[in-house]
Amino acid sequence: MRKIAVLSSFMEEHHIEKIRTLAAEYGFAVDFYADDRLDMTKADQYEILYGMPGPSLLKHMTGLQWFCTPSAGVEPYTPDEIYPHEGVLLTNSAGAYGITISEHILMVTLMLLRQMPAFQQVVAHRGWVRQMPMRSICGSTITVLGTGDIGTNFARRAKALGARTVYGVRRTKKAGDGAFDAMYGMDELNSILPQTDILVMALPGTPETAGTLSRERIALLPRHAVVVNVGRGSAIDQEALMDALNSESIAGAALDVMVPEPLPADHPLWEAKNILITPHISGNMSLGITRDLDVDLFCTDLANYANRRPLQQLVNRKLGY
Amino acid sequence: MRKIAVLSSFMEEHHIEKIRTLAAEYGFAVDFYADDRLDMTKADQYEILYGMPGPSLLKHMTGLQWFCTPSAGVEPYTPDEIYPHEGVLLTNSAGAYGITISEHILMVTLMLLRQMPAFQQVVAHRGWVRQMPMRSICGSTITVLGTGDIGTNFARRAKALGARTVYGVRRTKKAGDGAFDAMYGMDELNSILPQTDILVMALPGTPETAGTLSRERIALLPRHAVVVNVGRGSAIDQEALMDALNSESIAGAALDVMVPEPLPADHPLWEAKNILITPHISGNMSLGITRDLDVDLFCTDLANYANRRPLQQLVNRKLGY
Repeated sequence: MRKIAVLSSFMEEHHIEKIRTLAAEYGFAVDFYADDRLDMTKADQYEILYGMPGPSLLKHMTGLQWFCTPSAGVEPYTPDEIYPHEGVLLTNSAGAYGITISEHILMVTLMLLRQMPAFQQVVAHRGWVRQMPMRSICGSTITVLGTGDIGTNFARRAKALGARTVYGVRRTKKAGDGAFDAMYGMDELNSILPQTDILVMALPGTPETAGTLSRERIALLPRHAVVVNVGRGSAIDQEALMDALNSESIAGAALDVMVPEPLPADHPLWEAKNILITPHISGNMSLGITRDLDVDLFCTDLANYANRRPLQQLVNRKLGY
Repeated sequence: MRKIAVLSSFMEEHHIEKIRTLAAEYGFAVDFYADDRLDMTKADQYEILYGMPGPSLLKHMTGLQWFCTPSAGVEPYTPDEIYPHEGVLLTNSAGAYGITISEHILMVTLMLLRQMPAFQQVVAHRGWVRQMPMRSICGSTITVLGTGDIGTNFARRAKALGARTVYGVRRTKKAGDGAFDAMYGMDELNSILPQTDILVMALPGTPETAGTLSRERIALLPRHAVVVNVGRGSAIDQEALMDALNSESIAGAALDVMVPEPLPADHPLWEAKNILITPHISGNMSLGITRDLDVDLFCTDLANYANRRPLQQLVNRKLGY
């Protein structure tokens, strides 16, 4: 019988049942393991792997044809050298994270605009200060770098909250999906930064996106601008961002991703002015809806795979997404 | 010349100009004062007052015909005794606060659902914990008490974020405005509390709303429910809420209003489990859009007043809104 290995620490019973049932329909048996607990004596038996293993595991899976990761980012899995042979298909779970990460973006954006960290400091000392300058998403101009599932979900929410304009910026200029008021190519980014009140970054971690928000581009942002990054830390010149925050040439930043992660306790980023750091939680798998969507995406592609149709979530390992 | 007094500490130059110009068109002269700095020797000359004075000021304004407060709540201004004569019309600025307060509700709701205070504690110690249970507005059932400007603005945003159901609850059952999936009278509240994931309270402070969220009603909420109050603190049995939080029979609460305000440093509410206290800032006047709307509402009613039309923002002092 053909075999699937699932590294399933994030799954609930109903997810396991759903995968097992569907797999059986297509003639697959499924072994479920806790993360990184694959039975190495059986490693060569699996045709399909769904999970987030240490990359070194893959070499041992000599029968592997399709590897699906439950994450959206695939950086650890892009090098050819980690695979047992060149034919392994890689899919990701981009599409499972739009809801949860767009809610994270909304939350931290509102916290920055409404001075919530400063009010929380007041309250921590049981104080009572009622007036600090506050701003609104309503009427603001928002630029979103990365117009995939996450960027698009956020853009829709921002428009529903009354944002005046939401620009989408992507590697190559293409038509947007209506969530965006206008689309720009990355080579046009500099022209819209000076009008940007809120800059949201949801870029994958690829060689091409590294340093996208450079020192020069940070300098183009207005003083009241805030920056939110939920993509990959490598997309920002972090030194330049710290300088801009500490000199108050921008108003704040919320970073869910940074370099390195975890951020060392003595790293100067912790001390930057008006920074809101979260420990890479925006796509936290503990949210039920994220797990449900993630398993749904795998099941959809399992049916595609079994029926020899193209995989919907296929990643181009050269591009990195 | 007929005269208007404006207590204008929250205003910018363009607001002052707008009021002055419109007033002149209708034959009024306007004196602008900082809050509580009215020239008492002229108190009897003003036909109109726009501001938030100490209630004792009003008695001295013997020529007063119309008093407009820039706040939404009018509790200090409901007693007959504070007025120089029985003919004074009272208007409020409900309608100016829907945008800013609905953004506050969204922010604190997401903070509670996504465990943000706990993650902030981790980060404050430069720690790195990535997994804590998280929930989403998407798919949730939300009950909104008070279906005016604030409740309606929030309901629209919650639906745009994918809330499964948003119930509106008001004193008397009436048709909703499409922002709500269903409308209930306050006498039907008990039947929907057990299905409520998120309870949002935006009730005015009146004798009738006092104690709306009683001990009995808190007990009807599911364990995972969170409560957000942006109306008036008196609408909650605060002792019962603290008991429910501390025994974890509900999951959290975000209170922007409480009894008393400011909350004394030794009050036990500060120490309740999973509570997010803010110092009555959700309708903070420092937000430009709120000030603009507030001045717009006054100007609309100034035209109404001058043309002897009914005032749009008229408050029934007996009802308290």
